[in-house]
Amino acid sequence: MNISIVRYLLGQILKIEAILLLFPCIVAFIFREKQGLCFLIVSAVSALLGILLAAKKPKNNVFYLKEGCVTTASSWIILSLVGCLPFYISREIPSFTNALFETVSGFTTTGASILSDIESLSKCMLFWRSFTHWIGGMGVLVFLLAIAPMAGGSNMNLMKAESTGPSVGKLVPKVRTTARILYLLYLILTIVQFLFLILGNVPVFDSICIALGTAGTGGYSIKNDGFASYSPYCIWVTGIFMVLFGVNFNFYYLFLYKKIKKALQMEEVRTYFTIILVSVLIICIFNIGNYTSFVEGLMHSFFQVASIITTTGFASIDFDQWEQVPKLILLALMFVGGCAGSTAGGIKVSRIIIFVKTVFKELLSYIHPKSIKKIQLDHKPIEHEVIRATNVYLIIFILIFLISLFFISFENKDFTTNFSAIAATLNNIGPGLSMVGPMCNFDHFSIFSKYVMIFDMLAGRLELFPLLLLFHPALWKEYFSSRKGTI
Amino acid sequence: MNISIVRYLLGQILKIEAILLLFPCIVAFIFREKQGLCFLIVSAVSALLGILLAAKKPKNNVFYLKEGCVTTASSWIILSLVGCLPFYISREIPSFTNALFETVSGFTTTGASILSDIESLSKCMLFWRSFTHWIGGMGVLVFLLAIAPMAGGSNMNLMKAESTGPSVGKLVPKVRTTARILYLLYLILTIVQFLFLILGNVPVFDSICIALGTAGTGGYSIKNDGFASYSPYCIWVTGIFMVLFGVNFNFYYLFLYKKIKKALQMEEVRTYFTIILVSVLIICIFNIGNYTSFVEGLMHSFFQVASIITTTGFASIDFDQWEQVPKLILLALMFVGGCAGSTAGGIKVSRIIIFVKTVFKELLSYIHPKSIKKIQLDHKPIEHEVIRATNVYLIIFILIFLISLFFISFENKDFTTNFSAIAATLNNIGPGLSMVGPMCNFDHFSIFSKYVMIFDMLAGRLELFPLLLLFHPALWKEYFSSRKGTI
Repeated sequence: MNISIVRYLLGQILKIEAILLLFPCIVAFIFREKQGLCFLIVSAVSALLGILLAAKKPKNNVFYLKEGCVTTASSWIILSLVGCLPFYISREIPSFTNALFETVSGFTTTGASILSDIESLSKCMLFWRSFTHWIGGMGVLVFLLAIAPMAGGSNMNLMKAESTGPSVGKLVPKVRTTARILYLLYLILTIVQFLFLILGNVPVFDSICIALGTAGTGGYSIKNDGFASYSPYCIWVTGIFMVLFGVNFNFYYLFLYKKIKKALQMEEVRTYFTIILVSVLIICIFNIGNYTSFVEGLMHSFFQVASIITTTGFASIDFDQWEQVPKLILLALMFVGGCAGSTAGGIKVSRIIIFVKTVFKELLSYIHPKSIKKIQLDHKPIEHEVIRATNVYLIIFILIFLISLFFISFENKDFTTNFSAIAATLNNIGPGLSMVGPMCNFDHFSIFSKYVMIFDMLAGRLELFPLLLLFHPALWKEYFSSRKGTI
Repeated sequence: MNISIVRYLLGQILKIEAILLLFPCIVAFIFREKQGLCFLIVSAVSALLGILLAAKKPKNNVFYLKEGCVTTASSWIILSLVGCLPFYISREIPSFTNALFETVSGFTTTGASILSDIESLSKCMLFWRSFTHWIGGMGVLVFLLAIAPMAGGSNMNLMKAESTGPSVGKLVPKVRTTARILYLLYLILTIVQFLFLILGNVPVFDSICIALGTAGTGGYSIKNDGFASYSPYCIWVTGIFMVLFGVNFNFYYLFLYKKIKKALQMEEVRTYFTIILVSVLIICIFNIGNYTSFVEGLMHSFFQVASIITTTGFASIDFDQWEQVPKLILLALMFVGGCAGSTAGGIKVSRIIIFVKTVFKELLSYIHPKSIKKIQLDHKPIEHEVIRATNVYLIIFILIFLISLFFISFENKDFTTNFSAIAATLNNIGPGLSMVGPMCNFDHFSIFSKYVMIFDMLAGRLELFPLLLLFHPALWKEYFSSRKGTI
């Protein structure tokens, strides 16, 4: 393994984080909070470390998928370890595990919190929480690709390891341009949402945090009661923008370049909207009579569906009080997730489409054994590699799910709590049901369980492979044997 | 589709059922129960129907996998429809849905009951309940293969559709001999267990019913309290035989033919025993202090693990009272199931092995992209077809699971009840947790939910494909268009 390029890239990531940590400093300056100093210190440490690591340029630019995975996995871990320091050294979150949990939950756009009194945090800390969502949403390595010139092979393999969905398509031939377009779209959509919120008289600071949390499909709220105290206008706007951020960004790109017809034909996007529509309809029927008006019921149904399918995790009401069918739909949507190539988590709609098509193809092969029709998506055959990787993804997903469930069951909490806690972290949602419902938090878990869920959140965000690879013995065997060779 | 051969085989199945229905008549005769008449009547009806359907021999012997699937699926449905009539016309189970549920649960070796007072049933009905387990365990079509001479292609495709596991191996070149050996082994093992029980002073009738229920890995008990009132000796014997019936029958075949080394090297069997050992150990630790002695704790832990992994579903105690970790282990074992080629249900150990190996292979391909190692089982590469079908199996399993869960959630029962009810029926276990725990029954579900679970039990026993195929529009389109052509 080419460890020197991994080291170099980690250095670059730390330098970027040093800059990102200056944003909460600005917030602290505006609100005259002394906690800004913590960010300054951590920023300096991050910069120093970054400069040290990236000081020596790698001699060798060889960069395969494994280097991509290792870089991605380790940079997300380091990003979180450094990112949690402000919470910890300011004593606003006195436990290191809790600070790390909160930060990983932020970067992975999960939004599961260990805080019971969110409003007691200083503004700069609140901003940093929401800002981590925005950074993690599109991914910091994609950002690196967008700004830094990099050697040939590395681009695509980094992009592959950090992007979401079964296969990564480049919008344009150049990876760097693709990354830039993605970040530009991301930035513009965030700003548009911010402006809409401002227009609805939502306070500026709230608007910024909500927009950052929505864009990254994160779900940290800056209020103890989530979205309950915001106006219906704010709830509708946020609901709509959550849906928009769960759409495959290729869709917007095609739209921008006037390939509207092609955009509207994207199977994944159509399925995504169909799922949302059907889910809202069913939940709406169950909610008739539970709210003062039909429109209010519709609003909460839509907001919750949008929040869960995009794996954001904002809550306008306590959906844990709903009946079993609506709750089950939400639980199922947790696994579905948004579109590939969006900031949403979960299994992704395109994978679900591949699963369903695989089943139909297999059954058809029983009836017409000689048929050799390939599975298609958007009228293009899906490569065999992609189908295989998608199947393996499902297996790994189930394995990680089961093992995590096993580990956190030692606390003897009820099955619904445990099951939905893992569903909510592995899919990067945030709230679950029962004891981790939208009006509860994750603080009651033991330190051990919290680390299990930290692993799950990272595994979910990086779509399982990169993180698992980091723990694969063969990788380290190869690494150590190659080091021996160089001595 | 060659519908005439399907019709012919269904006729044969009905003739066999007519004979099988005479066994409870004998029981009724011994115990002087007038309900024996019901069995006689139904037997006559079954024979008549069978003779009618099989009167005309099919002209065409063409028999592909689709005919195998259609025959299997429809014969299991007809078998159950006829088999439930004695319960219904004797009014011992007055509701037709309940009678069908009980019978499907019997034939599919599930063992989920709708009866709250089992002991109120007459002896011949109790015997029929347990006997359906035995019939369903090895499969009635395999029995047909063993006794009736059949044209070339049909054998293997019937065997494939009814047998359990990802791929069906013939023990000997001839399918008919294979089927005979399987049934012979099955019969011998059942008799041995019966003898062991008799030796332990278990009453003869109890011994017969327990042996039939264990052999088919069914789980119907003839007592209201399950196994709680039986002696520790009886519990140990049954526990050990449950484990034995969950073993791949190829293992016994190899053993008999003195290929002991080869038998002991079977990966699936070794994994199966390892899983049992580890599960018993962990549960045992949790059970220390809950029982009067360590041995008693060990006994209940072992019995429950054996009962659940083999998908039998006998209960020596109310394991719903256990802590979360033991309960979760049992829940996980429900999905694992026994070995392929056994009478057990569930996903099967060999499929789990394939899943895990697929994951390791995929991760390794990230590290060594040029490696082209194939996945092996018992030192033989697994065919690509089998791996694909196994993956599709998993997807279908999840889809059926989710859809079923959705349907039964309309009753607004708690998540643990719903989840474990579907797990217990789709995997052919019997009892689940919470409201369908070992000391409860399935009667509280609505008629609609019961039909959902009837479907799940059949789908689980036939390993999903045959039943789904029966409902596939393309099959019927083909059938009707071919009929048009013949007119």
